[in-house]
Amino acid sequence: MIKKGRKKRRREYSVDEYVAGILSGNITLLSRAITLIESSLPEHSETAQLIIEKCLPHSSRSIRIGITGVPGAGKSTFIDTFGLHITKKGRKVAILTVDPSSEQNKGSILGDKTRMERLSVHPDVFIRPSPASGTLGGVARKTRETIILFEAAGFNTILVETVGVGQSETSVHSMVDCFLLLMLAGAGDELQGIKRGIMEMADLIAITKADGSNKLFAERARSTFQNSLNMFPEKASGWKPQALTCSALEDSGIDALWKIIIKYINFTINSGYFEEQRRQQSIIRMHNTINEYLNNAFYNQEEIKLLQPEIEQQLYEGKITSYRAASKLVDKFFKR
Amino acid sequence: MIKKGRKKRRREYSVDEYVAGILSGNITLLSRAITLIESSLPEHSETAQLIIEKCLPHSSRSIRIGITGVPGAGKSTFIDTFGLHITKKGRKVAILTVDPSSEQNKGSILGDKTRMERLSVHPDVFIRPSPASGTLGGVARKTRETIILFEAAGFNTILVETVGVGQSETSVHSMVDCFLLLMLAGAGDELQGIKRGIMEMADLIAITKADGSNKLFAERARSTFQNSLNMFPEKASGWKPQALTCSALEDSGIDALWKIIIKYINFTINSGYFEEQRRQQSIIRMHNTINEYLNNAFYNQEEIKLLQPEIEQQLYEGKITSYRAASKLVDKFFKR
Repeated sequence: MIKKGRKKRRREYSVDEYVAGILSGNITLLSRAITLIESSLPEHSETAQLIIEKCLPHSSRSIRIGITGVPGAGKSTFIDTFGLHITKKGRKVAILTVDPSSEQNKGSILGDKTRMERLSVHPDVFIRPSPASGTLGGVARKTRETIILFEAAGFNTILVETVGVGQSETSVHSMVDCFLLLMLAGAGDELQGIKRGIMEMADLIAITKADGSNKLFAERARSTFQNSLNMFPEKASGWKPQALTCSALEDSGIDALWKIIIKYINFTINSGYFEEQRRQQSIIRMHNTINEYLNNAFYNQEEIKLLQPEIEQQLYEGKITSYRAASKLVDKFFKR
Repeated sequence: MIKKGRKKRRREYSVDEYVAGILSGNITLLSRAITLIESSLPEHSETAQLIIEKCLPHSSRSIRIGITGVPGAGKSTFIDTFGLHITKKGRKVAILTVDPSSEQNKGSILGDKTRMERLSVHPDVFIRPSPASGTLGGVARKTRETIILFEAAGFNTILVETVGVGQSETSVHSMVDCFLLLMLAGAGDELQGIKRGIMEMADLIAITKADGSNKLFAERARSTFQNSLNMFPEKASGWKPQALTCSALEDSGIDALWKIIIKYINFTINSGYFEEQRRQQSIIRMHNTINEYLNNAFYNQEEIKLLQPEIEQQLYEGKITSYRAASKLVDKFFKR
């Protein structure tokens, strides 16, 4: 009896209703459209694709910033402070978390909303955690599509946070305009725990927690990182990556950081790199989409659906190798 | 003139010569076969597949251990000491590094060989760094195939090291029997920097650098981690994950760790989980292989090769969306 109210079905919306809602900044419809993107039901993803296509031309002139950091760098606190700061500059901020390992592990220990206390209740901010399932490729696609909807809904600053220091950075790097790396002042082992590849991706490095007695160490770390950055080969953008210090606690260095992000964006817009990078990213997006389409076509083919359990059984029993099993299914798929 | 000697062509071997060489423990042929696995040339990968198929039935009764750790945990030093220790127990040790972000970034700052000084010159040890190119999926497949060759060549202990704390752990977890997580004693923030999902994968946690004045902290961290481990839901294996302390510097705790690994392996062999997990892993391997086959078939199809540049151009010029571009190519591929 107590659950009776829940049986009331949620209203279904048409694609045009979704699009109109998103373009007018309706947060409820935006959220529901993102849920469609994240859904694994074919009919949902079909609707989602139509919504995305219609939103694409309307996506606002946005800045997409990827934020990653070493463990302990205080990413959530930083984003909370940074996000709040830029809303005061009139930015509408959407925050996404790309967390591929949440696919099987129910996500991070702390929820995104509790991690960013002040932002989570801010009217000009929308926080969306990582889709709860899928491969890194799938998560990346969903993130890219979600960005489009955010922009169509008028969010002009997209912060894409990556969790961990690993594969997801490469993926996030391929969907943002600017890549910000948060580092911590350490005891001389600053280069520990961060891969050179990730440092090379960075357009900006911010040494966090530059406050109190840590200020001196932070400044020293900044100088070390700046030296490392100077030694890397020149970036395709022509931009010389910079290292700064900041403190979320004391709210210092945040404005300087935002100014340098704007400087970077203007630099790349003027050189044409901004546009060029977005174009290259759309090609990467195409290849990722192709891979998803191929897999869907494969596993939804009737012959494969019929044969797969039998092959898996043979494989399970050790009668054939993984490679032979894969060949058999692929041959069946292509009717060879 | 000075380069004349280099022009001498390396001898080509037949599949059977490769297989015979590997089975007899010939390191040169083993290395060259691994190079074939890593090659992107179709004829190489074909030869490699035949070699793998023939080696599969001969792969030895091995133990495959995944090793990951937080930045600063001293993974290389640990592996150097641990590897040396188990060679003294008569194990032949092969070490692989899975480092997906090396794909575009020329790998870690330090080479694998310099990272593990003592092991790199040990006759019973073979160190192979991550393949230098490819997606995480490709790197994972190559790693799995390399493991097979190692085992056929008589290496009965495979250490698969992951770099970073991110996506690659899930991938490595799907190719090993036992998952070891290296952690560092911190100042109460032990759970920082490690995702719950990765902790849940761990069969064993070793707190490294438990030496000198750090011993007390390490013991406290061990106890904290053991408590966290106890709170997780029971593992599919029925094994209760354990936290230990060790020191590579003082060579303490290493033997205890090895004994508990053996205990874990025996526990899972007796319960049938060891075999069950390997079978499930072979099914994952099949799906990964299917994905590679599909992509190869797609991008090597003549029509796609012809159409792709044109579509990419349209996409680049912003005339179509990534999704439309992907659809067009996929429709062409399937002749729809």
